[in-house]
Amino acid sequence: MLPKAVQKVIEQFGKLPGVGQKTAERLAFYLLKQHPQKLEDFGVSVKNLRQNLLFCEVCHNLSETNRCIICQNQKRDPSVLCVVEEVLDIMAFEKTGEFNGLYHVLQGVISPVNGVGPQDLTIDSLKERIENENISEIILATNPTIEGEATALYISKVLQPFDIKMTRIARGLPTGSDLEYADRLTLSRSLQGRQEY
Amino acid sequence: MLPKAVQKVIEQFGKLPGVGQKTAERLAFYLLKQHPQKLEDFGVSVKNLRQNLLFCEVCHNLSETNRCIICQNQKRDPSVLCVVEEVLDIMAFEKTGEFNGLYHVLQGVISPVNGVGPQDLTIDSLKERIENENISEIILATNPTIEGEATALYISKVLQPFDIKMTRIARGLPTGSDLEYADRLTLSRSLQGRQEY
Repeated sequence: MLPKAVQKVIEQFGKLPGVGQKTAERLAFYLLKQHPQKLEDFGVSVKNLRQNLLFCEVCHNLSETNRCIICQNQKRDPSVLCVVEEVLDIMAFEKTGEFNGLYHVLQGVISPVNGVGPQDLTIDSLKERIENENISEIILATNPTIEGEATALYISKVLQPFDIKMTRIARGLPTGSDLEYADRLTLSRSLQGRQEY
Repeated sequence: MLPKAVQKVIEQFGKLPGVGQKTAERLAFYLLKQHPQKLEDFGVSVKNLRQNLLFCEVCHNLSETNRCIICQNQKRDPSVLCVVEEVLDIMAFEKTGEFNGLYHVLQGVISPVNGVGPQDLTIDSLKERIENENISEIILATNPTIEGEATALYISKVLQPFDIKMTRIARGLPTGSDLEYADRLTLSRSLQGRQEY
């Protein structure tokens, strides 16, 4: 029915996570109304997404150079490592402006269901860093999900021999939320993690 | 913070309707994990979206040739015209398999707020078709929105001199819906449009 060029774009959008057939159609027809130059820009930028893109050899963050700009930054405190699941988590922490240490990206979580074991993550590289760098604290900042918690627990056990300070980010009620509507687990956590004034 | 190539793709996705910053980031990172060949396919298909694409000179449907495949189809009934707002509306009607006539795409609705007047739509071309083709019925199938209703009303007045049968698609309760939760206007319409057994 539709011209092939349009069908192709709909198909491509439809493969994206969270984009169904209807949304894909809507997006393709939106693009159809745009100036050809804008289509060119969009297309080329997607095509070139992976060009010149590396993972930092130290922390496994996305980078255009062998070492990412965070690892290269001399003003950051190299003695604190924040261990996260994905590159996007770094962005989230950076936006808070609260953390001035370095990161370590696991590139996933331990997930037997998805066939991801500890050896698929960058845990060995984390161990090497602890052996070779002068690190005083490891912040385990995996997601507060079952898999994230399990991964944090696993890493904490693996790193036990190093006798290094290990912390887990606080889990509790999110800012602006309503206690009344919080789930049981979140509420228990907010009690367990209560702090003195 | 992020490599430029990634920022660019996030920016491009962020411009799409209904895609916010977070979704754009998620999509870009999803693409990052794909095979370079898939990125190439995606990019090229977007880039080439408008290539070799025309609007049908008769009904203004999207087409790869001067006349779209619906207008070219000899098996369709050329005496009934279904007037729709957008090309996607044709797809929706075609999926029902209930309509065997031809279409006319207005390419929009009359919308003073958005600065769209009757002269911006393909109404003149519709008049020409009625003058030159042998048409017995016009089905006004614009959306049941304020603007769609106004556009249908406008067209029905403009075409009055032609003394041709004009119908409006039925508005009422959608299949599978619950009368109890229907809005007032939809319910009134379902009463006004009631039909005898």
